[in-house]
Amino acid sequence: MEGPELSTSTGKQSWEIKAANKRASILANIPREWRLEPLDLEKAANQREITGSFIQQFLNEEEVTIIQKDSVSLVADIKDQNYTALQVTRAFCKVAAIAHQINNCLHEIFFDQALKRASELDDYVNEHKSTMGPLHGLPISLKDQFHVRGTDTSMGYVGWISTYEGRNDPHLTHKVDSQIVTELLSLGAVLYCKTSLPQTLLFGETENNIIGRTLNPVNQNLSCGGSSGGEAALKALRGSTLGVGTDIGGSVRIPAAFCGVFSIKPTHNRFSYRDVANVIPGQTTYASSVGFLGTTIDALQLIMSSVLSTQPWLRDPNVAPIPWRYDMSRNTLLRATDDGKAKSGSCLKLGIFWTDGVVTLQPPISRGLRLAVDALTKAGHKIVNWLPPPQKDAKRIHLSFLRADGHHDVHKQLNLSGEPLIPPLRETFGLEEPMSLLEYQRLTLEGRDYEAAYSDYWNSLTEEDGQAVDAVIMPVAPHAAVIPGKYYHTAYTEAINLLDYSVAVIPVTKADKNIDLPDKDFVPVSEVDAKNWAAYDPEIYHGAPVGIQIVARKYEEEKVWAIGKIVHTILEDYLKHA
Amino acid sequence: MEGPELSTSTGKQSWEIKAANKRASILANIPREWRLEPLDLEKAANQREITGSFIQQFLNEEEVTIIQKDSVSLVADIKDQNYTALQVTRAFCKVAAIAHQINNCLHEIFFDQALKRASELDDYVNEHKSTMGPLHGLPISLKDQFHVRGTDTSMGYVGWISTYEGRNDPHLTHKVDSQIVTELLSLGAVLYCKTSLPQTLLFGETENNIIGRTLNPVNQNLSCGGSSGGEAALKALRGSTLGVGTDIGGSVRIPAAFCGVFSIKPTHNRFSYRDVANVIPGQTTYASSVGFLGTTIDALQLIMSSVLSTQPWLRDPNVAPIPWRYDMSRNTLLRATDDGKAKSGSCLKLGIFWTDGVVTLQPPISRGLRLAVDALTKAGHKIVNWLPPPQKDAKRIHLSFLRADGHHDVHKQLNLSGEPLIPPLRETFGLEEPMSLLEYQRLTLEGRDYEAAYSDYWNSLTEEDGQAVDAVIMPVAPHAAVIPGKYYHTAYTEAINLLDYSVAVIPVTKADKNIDLPDKDFVPVSEVDAKNWAAYDPEIYHGAPVGIQIVARKYEEEKVWAIGKIVHTILEDYLKHA
Repeated sequence: MEGPELSTSTGKQSWEIKAANKRASILANIPREWRLEPLDLEKAANQREITGSFIQQFLNEEEVTIIQKDSVSLVADIKDQNYTALQVTRAFCKVAAIAHQINNCLHEIFFDQALKRASELDDYVNEHKSTMGPLHGLPISLKDQFHVRGTDTSMGYVGWISTYEGRNDPHLTHKVDSQIVTELLSLGAVLYCKTSLPQTLLFGETENNIIGRTLNPVNQNLSCGGSSGGEAALKALRGSTLGVGTDIGGSVRIPAAFCGVFSIKPTHNRFSYRDVANVIPGQTTYASSVGFLGTTIDALQLIMSSVLSTQPWLRDPNVAPIPWRYDMSRNTLLRATDDGKAKSGSCLKLGIFWTDGVVTLQPPISRGLRLAVDALTKAGHKIVNWLPPPQKDAKRIHLSFLRADGHHDVHKQLNLSGEPLIPPLRETFGLEEPMSLLEYQRLTLEGRDYEAAYSDYWNSLTEEDGQAVDAVIMPVAPHAAVIPGKYYHTAYTEAINLLDYSVAVIPVTKADKNIDLPDKDFVPVSEVDAKNWAAYDPEIYHGAPVGIQIVARKYEEEKVWAIGKIVHTILEDYLKHA
Repeated sequence: MEGPELSTSTGKQSWEIKAANKRASILANIPREWRLEPLDLEKAANQREITGSFIQQFLNEEEVTIIQKDSVSLVADIKDQNYTALQVTRAFCKVAAIAHQINNCLHEIFFDQALKRASELDDYVNEHKSTMGPLHGLPISLKDQFHVRGTDTSMGYVGWISTYEGRNDPHLTHKVDSQIVTELLSLGAVLYCKTSLPQTLLFGETENNIIGRTLNPVNQNLSCGGSSGGEAALKALRGSTLGVGTDIGGSVRIPAAFCGVFSIKPTHNRFSYRDVANVIPGQTTYASSVGFLGTTIDALQLIMSSVLSTQPWLRDPNVAPIPWRYDMSRNTLLRATDDGKAKSGSCLKLGIFWTDGVVTLQPPISRGLRLAVDALTKAGHKIVNWLPPPQKDAKRIHLSFLRADGHHDVHKQLNLSGEPLIPPLRETFGLEEPMSLLEYQRLTLEGRDYEAAYSDYWNSLTEEDGQAVDAVIMPVAPHAAVIPGKYYHTAYTEAINLLDYSVAVIPVTKADKNIDLPDKDFVPVSEVDAKNWAAYDPEIYHGAPVGIQIVARKYEEEKVWAIGKIVHTILEDYLKHA
């Protein structure tokens, strides 16, 4: 484990002691019988991939069976009484416990609370002969921004440990549930752990001064991504089938792609952010979305439709009152056959975004996009080149908003404990003068105009054949899971936050050192392009997941989910026969 | 007519000459045969009320018949070929021409364009044997923030005359249609004039340095309200049955109430603001709504449902993709009988907001609210007292956002021509240092928390009887149409902009010097309360319309429209039998 070490000797700063104590207390919440031996920990540390059979060696047969199931099957199994909620919960608690020991992906562990809840759910079924709701008994993990009564939310800040977002208020500390937490509980979910994230949230890797760093369990040379990094890592390890994260610059999409799982970033007003801890919460011009990660695409419809069935807009006035539109997802699915082939006269029309002209895609990613395009074309869908307004403008405007407060919010939180910025952020997150309000308002108009121009471009592609573009296939990043310290270009996700579009991320393939060879004649188009290209190493990357973004317009979560499902189906079939 | 006079003699500033020329050019667009004699103008100036029979004396019988019809009947009549679009358009052009001469309510007159359009629509019907859309042939007026190709949009700024929002760009000047203008045209509407508004838009009266002041045609002692003042005045004069305005602090609601017409202020993301001129456009935290004014409540559903049928969200990414939900308006209407009486088990539950504790309502307004409550109670609906989080907090936060830029945007526009602030704004609209961004972001959180607390209060009233509050009846202002210069307290509308709720305004009654007597024992609760109370004069106010706000939650335009219709029906019946 990286980060400051546990020690109470003199010479340690008080923040280091607090962080170390917190780190120890997380581990202390793991029951003794689920603790690994030092030898196993060492074995894990030396292993490239720790998912699949590696982590399964610590489980019994029933546990392996349970954790390999997906969210939808688990809910059905519990409903059909093939398993009790307690059996399922215990299995996921155990695998999460092991995952954390070998992958450092949890910030809060509250298995006791979860097992008690699962028992109550089982009692509920016995008493009422029906389940509590569509998520009855399903263990759901949460990024450590969501408040759950009885547990900490440190969000990676040492100064937030044992407080409510840094405030010592006994009426709030450990007393608040985020609105979506209340909703999940009302739907029957079991909450059992909160997952790791980077200091500030504004980082595509996962590292903070409390738990150190979370690596990619599929390839430990690489980062799990960020900021919802622990969510994705836990899913790759099957310690969770479904979880909740947030995304202001790629934070559910990047980790999902890097760890090979599924994700949806909704338009930010679709789900409730009420009483969720956040960075720079007063910057609402380009706001963070609550988003979801799952081991299957179906899990994502399950959680989105369930949460919206509680009408979150009645409790959070920021949520748009749009229920889950089953007709939209169904009608989209009906445009293809069960194996994803275009039905006559109703093929999908998808844009393909090969490059933003600033940073070229590393070979595994360009191959991933090509695979998707080839498979979709073969299945009879229409692909058009996507040449929107310059993405670098979107990136510049978006970044300006994230930096507008001169990092005052971040430094205020750091100052609570005296902890420093983590090393990768030291150069860019220094305290600065905030932007002037007039410049902030000017940039708001620039962003508005960019959004309008992008929308106009989208509409312009209808003209040639009378058919509107349904969605656009894009890279998530110019590389598969990043080598720590080498994330140079986040524009591919950030631009979409400026547009606030709905996005699905699905896994496509894995980096392969035998196929994904760098083009020796490559001429970089920019300095950052050269750096990104130089960072590619087929050996290091071998086995890293490759995901893609599927981007639809605002509030089209139903549609983008369905398109994600179609594309995934097509790709599975295509790769089987390739 | 007030405001600077036409003169080219030395001593006049260049802005005064420009304003005078513009003023003259507006009048010059009125055909000679529709110009009034000086004697008539003098008669109008000395008349308390210039609506109804007064203005009708200048019309022939057919014109009177046409202009007394409402929007829905006009559309039906044109569809059924009882009238041609040209006949209807000519009648409304004529009455608008007369209205402007006696009430000074127009900023742009483009009757030529309108009559040509009407002819084309008639040709369309002859050729296609069907209408172009649900607004076919209906003359619709627009506040002078909306761009219409071929015409100016000065928004009351001298420096904007003959430019595009102050820019001399031949590709833009007179070349842009606001998105909603395009939508209205695609639906078959006829556009013929743009209406007056105050300098800055941030004023509850209507006055600027170009056309001077627009008074209340129902009672010329009083203001028509603002900022969509010309819209409401024109409707009171029947120069338009349906029009489009905007509302950031009460700007469609105040004039509607003051002039005795109907209005809806939607949640701001419901309709497109794209390519609409605005004040401080970069302040989007609390954004202005496009709203509607009509001579009947049914006109408002007609325009909202029609515009949404064009799917504005596909062209303006800021619009939420929520079509007009006929089931919501229908189901609300079905809760009452045709005469508004509560059906068994489905009565409305409405809050009543008597006072914000800062400024007491003048007698005509408190009587108006009492009338509504009595009528609703008698009709079997449920009324509950409304005691939300302090409205003064909402007002303070909202006003902070409007003032945050230190009025830099306003002064930038004034400086284009050198025109001064209009006198009523001089004290409060001086150029100041903009707010700091950190304070702006802090206030954003304060606003968010206020919205959440208000929503929680709304939900809390469900507990006592299990029924949710459907909407809340509130005053629009503490007085009927204001005496110019005496608008001291705009909190009753502004607070609702902070909440971004959907609101219907309906007329209830008229001030009556014989009934609305001031309470001699009145003890003011604040200085502004004393000023507002002192401003009431039964003689001056006699005959002034009294309207009320009906406030529903965000994006509930369908529901609030239907409740407005029910309440209006009940009141008509109640007043008939009172």
